[in-house]
Amino acid sequence: MTRQTKVMPSLGEAIRQSGLRDGMTISFHHHLREGDRVLNSVLAECSVLGLKDLTVNASALMGCHRSILDFVRDGTVTGIECNFMHAQIGQAISRGALEREVVFRSHGGRPAAMDRGESRIDVAFIAASAADATGNCNGKQGNAAFGSIGYAMPDAEHAQYVVVVTDQLFEYPLIGASISEESVDAVVVIDSIGDPLRIMSGTTRVTRDPIGLLIAEQAAKAIGASGLLRDGFTFQTGAGGTSLAVAQYLGEIMREQGIVGRFASGGITGLLVNLLREGLFETLLDVQCFDREAVLSIGEDARHGEISATRYASPAAKSSVVDHLDVVILGATEIDTDFNVNVHTDSNGVIMGGSGGHSDTAAGAKLSIIVAPIMRARMPLIVDRVGTISTPGEDIDLLVTQYGLACNPRRSELASRLERAGLPVVPIHDLKAKAESITGVPTRSTHKGRPIARVISRDGMLLDTIAMIED
Amino acid sequence: MTRQTKVMPSLGEAIRQSGLRDGMTISFHHHLREGDRVLNSVLAECSVLGLKDLTVNASALMGCHRSILDFVRDGTVTGIECNFMHAQIGQAISRGALEREVVFRSHGGRPAAMDRGESRIDVAFIAASAADATGNCNGKQGNAAFGSIGYAMPDAEHAQYVVVVTDQLFEYPLIGASISEESVDAVVVIDSIGDPLRIMSGTTRVTRDPIGLLIAEQAAKAIGASGLLRDGFTFQTGAGGTSLAVAQYLGEIMREQGIVGRFASGGITGLLVNLLREGLFETLLDVQCFDREAVLSIGEDARHGEISATRYASPAAKSSVVDHLDVVILGATEIDTDFNVNVHTDSNGVIMGGSGGHSDTAAGAKLSIIVAPIMRARMPLIVDRVGTISTPGEDIDLLVTQYGLACNPRRSELASRLERAGLPVVPIHDLKAKAESITGVPTRSTHKGRPIARVISRDGMLLDTIAMIED
Repeated sequence: MTRQTKVMPSLGEAIRQSGLRDGMTISFHHHLREGDRVLNSVLAECSVLGLKDLTVNASALMGCHRSILDFVRDGTVTGIECNFMHAQIGQAISRGALEREVVFRSHGGRPAAMDRGESRIDVAFIAASAADATGNCNGKQGNAAFGSIGYAMPDAEHAQYVVVVTDQLFEYPLIGASISEESVDAVVVIDSIGDPLRIMSGTTRVTRDPIGLLIAEQAAKAIGASGLLRDGFTFQTGAGGTSLAVAQYLGEIMREQGIVGRFASGGITGLLVNLLREGLFETLLDVQCFDREAVLSIGEDARHGEISATRYASPAAKSSVVDHLDVVILGATEIDTDFNVNVHTDSNGVIMGGSGGHSDTAAGAKLSIIVAPIMRARMPLIVDRVGTISTPGEDIDLLVTQYGLACNPRRSELASRLERAGLPVVPIHDLKAKAESITGVPTRSTHKGRPIARVISRDGMLLDTIAMIED
Repeated sequence: MTRQTKVMPSLGEAIRQSGLRDGMTISFHHHLREGDRVLNSVLAECSVLGLKDLTVNASALMGCHRSILDFVRDGTVTGIECNFMHAQIGQAISRGALEREVVFRSHGGRPAAMDRGESRIDVAFIAASAADATGNCNGKQGNAAFGSIGYAMPDAEHAQYVVVVTDQLFEYPLIGASISEESVDAVVVIDSIGDPLRIMSGTTRVTRDPIGLLIAEQAAKAIGASGLLRDGFTFQTGAGGTSLAVAQYLGEIMREQGIVGRFASGGITGLLVNLLREGLFETLLDVQCFDREAVLSIGEDARHGEISATRYASPAAKSSVVDHLDVVILGATEIDTDFNVNVHTDSNGVIMGGSGGHSDTAAGAKLSIIVAPIMRARMPLIVDRVGTISTPGEDIDLLVTQYGLACNPRRSELASRLERAGLPVVPIHDLKAKAESITGVPTRSTHKGRPIARVISRDGMLLDTIAMIED
């Protein structure tokens, strides 16, 4: 007895079969990053079908998803939940494009909200570069391979109805599936799920900026002095150019000192793949591949493991990878003198990002380091109070800038270690004064419009709200 | 921030920490088969701790688990749920050792009952040959490697509290974990989880019995004549000597005709591993390794995939592997003239087995074949009405014996195909008469004691009850 086929003739038919109705929530993952075509295609179909009042829950909204604003305008979409929002969408949202407040979570908080029953997904649309007719699928095979499909795994587990969207159908059973048929209701084959060459957008190369390189070198030295850099070391770094440069300098120190790290985690780049191959790390725990080298590696190297967003960072999991981190390297658009970090809004209060795994890794790691120049485009990094709290200051241990390293006062033993190693440790207030001596003290509008977004902590609490910008 | 360690100093401490109380349900898997030491060790600890009235939900109870009867006698265990029960335990149960009725499910029905909320597991004890301190674990590595850990995956997902029991702790993170830390509450290291040499008990060798070989050859010819044996063929066979011989003969036909099968599934043996290596099957979907060759293969060959019991056979899954089977080869202790099959009780009505995946694969496969001699120890195979219905006759297509092949009357087109191929198709009544001409018509006790077990169909319905034997 073989059941009815799951393969639908079109996206529209899959949507009809899913029972999607006005007011429901649909979900997406962002592993194809700026190359993704699935979110836009699904929204266009929903609009054609006359669906209204949908909430889009996406692990991230990239610039390529800006057509979501058209579907906001025509009433198809009236709710947005995400862990990151590109400035191209954020600018419109910050100007009041959406009536309901956007819900920002983190990469760990999103699956945790599903686990706790706080976040319901009615229909998940899962882009997969390889799938069979029953929905066994992954991102490792196929022409549009994008690597780890980790952010979509909680959606497959929790959504009421799961649609796998692929452009390459394999024979049953797909060997090496990351998501199993047991969770999948429907499979749709479309012409193209996206352009894998656009996975790697501007951010995933080591910086060549001398200030960035100086900061990265100081950060690597700080790790070396922290007492954490020993055999078994565990590490995560973002895909920003300075963060990647830290990994490069750190590799040099590890090579010199003969240190072998246990794992590097999170979003994985070719740079980390090279450290794995060289034997400087024993394994990679990959929730998202940031470039082609990472995509190729996860498909062929057993030491390069795929992890779900839940296993990566969910505080509702019985434990997660971030709990085992020694050091994480993170960015910031603003940091305040209490070490609160903003990665959601720019200096004008306009949405241009989101937590991603920022707050998750900062909470988990023994040493969380912010690397950033003290000013950008004549706006100072350090402020009295960040415009938006993305990660609470209690989870940030160290700020590394081109003018010195500022330790969170809660970490006095760290400051001592860094000073003993000859690193220029300075009070964060001094760094703030230094920047302001160059840029002047910026004036900030105190006028605040209605709230247009809520930042939810990984534990499900309200961390901050973001106000509308009135030009 | 690293959370509190999950590693418990002893089984007893893990049980205390789990909050296990009188009347609760604990679960086990049986991948170590006759070599398992975990179930007995846990029950002994529960007894020492004075716990009473526990229900044991095990994927199977083997002969080595017969000490469960001691814990039934002392009141530690008052409930048993399983998919298979060895005769050494079944004999006592059939004589009324347990007041409450045993609940028999199938390998697919067990996870389905968890998914539907009909079966609650309070504490799962998962034997793992390799684990790290957070509970990432598998059965593929370590000295007591047993291969697939598929039957334990639903327990990890659904149990309120999950204890991983291992005898070999690996550094975090275990590379290639089958069950993830996100589901695991506690880890206990004991001296030995069991003897992997005893995974392969008597049944997992090709028969040398000439009658068994004859039956197997006929069954393979029937498959060849069925119209299903073509490129892409999918196949499952049990670990019984005759079932294995079918695979061997089938391999010969496939080799001769240049046919490449897509997958073989279920419990995997070295014989199937050899067919994979030879290229006669493209992939294996393994819920349980039956011998050392299979254990070695699943650890090193990407084409040899591990599947959960849910993905294998759960009718609550959105689809499962058994739905894609062309042919399954199954055994029977009795079959009746309506093709109902009994694998639970012997001719005296005494419990000596259980469904395992019998009813799941029979329901899923396009062609389900029973291979059995028409009599054993002077007891006829074919009866008017089986003592226990394990698999409904509507799911059985063909019976192959040494005196001919009997087709289910619902499959007249199959009978025609077999006849055209020159195979000796006979009415099942003729086979029954043939056996009875040798053995005589056995007299069966019509006296039935109180019900001591219920057989639950994979869909959660009552399929049959088993009565107490009164000597």
